[in-house]
Amino acid sequence: MNDNIKTKINEYKEAVNKKLDEYLKIQYPEEIWESMRYSVLSGGKRIRPVMALETCNVLSGNYEKALPAACAIEMLHCQSLIHDDLPCMDNDDYRRGKLTNHKVFGESTAVLAGDALLSFAPQMIIQHTKCEDSIKLKILEEFLISAGAEKLIAGQVVDIASEGKQINKETLDFIHANKTGALFKLSIRTGAILGGAGEKTLSALTEFSEKLGLAFQISDDILDETATLDTLGKTPHKDKAAGKVTYLSFYGMDEAKKRLAFLCENACDILKSNNIDSEVLRQIAMSINERVR
Amino acid sequence: MNDNIKTKINEYKEAVNKKLDEYLKIQYPEEIWESMRYSVLSGGKRIRPVMALETCNVLSGNYEKALPAACAIEMLHCQSLIHDDLPCMDNDDYRRGKLTNHKVFGESTAVLAGDALLSFAPQMIIQHTKCEDSIKLKILEEFLISAGAEKLIAGQVVDIASEGKQINKETLDFIHANKTGALFKLSIRTGAILGGAGEKTLSALTEFSEKLGLAFQISDDILDETATLDTLGKTPHKDKAAGKVTYLSFYGMDEAKKRLAFLCENACDILKSNNIDSEVLRQIAMSINERVR
Repeated sequence: MNDNIKTKINEYKEAVNKKLDEYLKIQYPEEIWESMRYSVLSGGKRIRPVMALETCNVLSGNYEKALPAACAIEMLHCQSLIHDDLPCMDNDDYRRGKLTNHKVFGESTAVLAGDALLSFAPQMIIQHTKCEDSIKLKILEEFLISAGAEKLIAGQVVDIASEGKQINKETLDFIHANKTGALFKLSIRTGAILGGAGEKTLSALTEFSEKLGLAFQISDDILDETATLDTLGKTPHKDKAAGKVTYLSFYGMDEAKKRLAFLCENACDILKSNNIDSEVLRQIAMSINERVR
Repeated sequence: MNDNIKTKINEYKEAVNKKLDEYLKIQYPEEIWESMRYSVLSGGKRIRPVMALETCNVLSGNYEKALPAACAIEMLHCQSLIHDDLPCMDNDDYRRGKLTNHKVFGESTAVLAGDALLSFAPQMIIQHTKCEDSIKLKILEEFLISAGAEKLIAGQVVDIASEGKQINKETLDFIHANKTGALFKLSIRTGAILGGAGEKTLSALTEFSEKLGLAFQISDDILDETATLDTLGKTPHKDKAAGKVTYLSFYGMDEAKKRLAFLCENACDILKSNNIDSEVLRQIAMSINERVR
C-alpha cells in the first residue's frame, strides 16, 4: 500500500477514533461507559468505518456526512465481538491483543455493555447525521436489519450450531455472508447512500462489498491456521479447537489462497468497470489478499 | 376494574399479541426466531403496549398508528428480561410462569435472541409505523435512548452494583426511575406523540407516567415479599436473597402501601386536571394499587 493511501486511511481512522471518543463520554454509572469505551476504543483496524467514509467521499467529495454512521457500524461490530467472546459463546480471553471485555469488567457488565452499544449506535446516527429524514430512515433500517436475526445474528447462530459438524459449502457460505459479509455490505452501502449514489453505482458497490466480505473471511480462516496470538491479537487455532469447518476444510490452503486472490482482483475489476475511482477501496481489496502472504 | 374497561384492555392486548405473532414469523435459522417468540409470546400483562395504545387512542380516536411502536416496546421489555434472567445476571429459572429463555434454548441463544430483539424492535417501528418521517425519527430516538446506557441499562447496572450494599434513597430512586420507569414513560410518551399531543398534554402525560412507573416498582417490591411462585409467575423473595435494598427497606410494609396508594391517586389527579379523559389509564393506575391488597 503506498504512502498517500496509508495517510488517507489514517485520516479516516483518526476521524473515527476522535468521534467515537466524543460520543462515548463517561456518564453515571461510569462502569458501563468504561466497559463500552474499553472495547470500542481498543485500536481495531477500523476497516468497516474506513470503507464507509471512503465510499461516501469518492461519490460526494466529502466524508463527514458518513462519520456518525461509520462510527455506529464500528460500535455494532464491537458489540458483536463483546458478546461473541462471552464464556457461553466463544469463551475467549483475548481480543485485539487485550483481555476481552468480560475478563476485565465481568460477564454481567459485558452483556449490558453490548446491549447498550446496540441501541447507542443507531441513536448516534439519528442525532448526528446531517441528511434528509427519508435518507436517515433508510440507512437506519439497513443498519438494524444487518444487526439482527436476518443477517449478523443469523450468521452467528448457524456458526455456533455448526461447531463439530460436517456442514456443506452452502451452509458455510451462509455463515460468512451474514457473520462477516453483512457489516462489510452495510458499510459500503451506507457510505454510498449518504454519498448520493445512483441505482447503478449502488448496485456495483454492493457487489464489490460482497466480494470483499468473502475475501476477508477467507483471509481470516487462513490466518487462524497460520498466525500466532502476537500477530493476530486474538487466540489463533480457534476454528480447529472448536471443530469448525472453514474454507480450508473445503479447499485446502493453496486453493483457498488462490480463491482469495481471485476475489480481490474481481472486486477491483468491479470498481474499474463502473468508473468508481477509489484508490483506497482498491488498495483495501489488495491488502486483504496480502494479509496472508 | 369494570367489564367495559377489561374488554377494552383485552382488545389492545389481542391486537398486540396478533401483531407480535405476525412480526416474529419463523425464518431460517429457526432456532433464533423460536427463542425470540418463546419470550415475547409468553403471555405477559402487556401493560406497556396497552398504555401506549390507549394514550394514542384517547388523543386521536385511533390506536392502530401506535401498534408497531407498542409492539417494539414490549419486545424491548422482553429483551431486558431475557438478559436479566441469564446465569451471569439474576440467574433465574422462571419467568411469567415458564422456564426462562436460557433454560430452554441455552445461554448463547438467549444472549443472541435478546440482541436480535434489540434491533428488530426499532426495525418494526421504521417499517410499519404510518406517520411523518420526522415523528418517526423522534419516537425512534426516544426508544433508543430509553433502551440504552442512559436509561434502562443505567438502572440495571446500578441495581446489580448495589446488591448486598446499603444504598441511599437517591440511589434506589435512580434504579427505579430507569429500570422500570424508563419504559413506562416511553410507552406513554410514544402513544402521546403519535396521538398528536400538544406540549402541555405531553408534559402532563409524562408526569403521569413517572408516578405510574414508581408505583409499579413499589408494588413489585411488595409482591416480591408477599407472593408465591404461583401467583407471581417468577421466583419470589429474590430481592432479599440477593441482598437488595427495596422500598420496604426504607419504609416498611405499611408505609410502602400508603405511598403506593398516594402515587396512584396522584396519577389519576394529573389526568383529571389536564382533561385527559381515559378511563383505561385511570383504572390501570388504580389496579397497580390493587395488586398488593
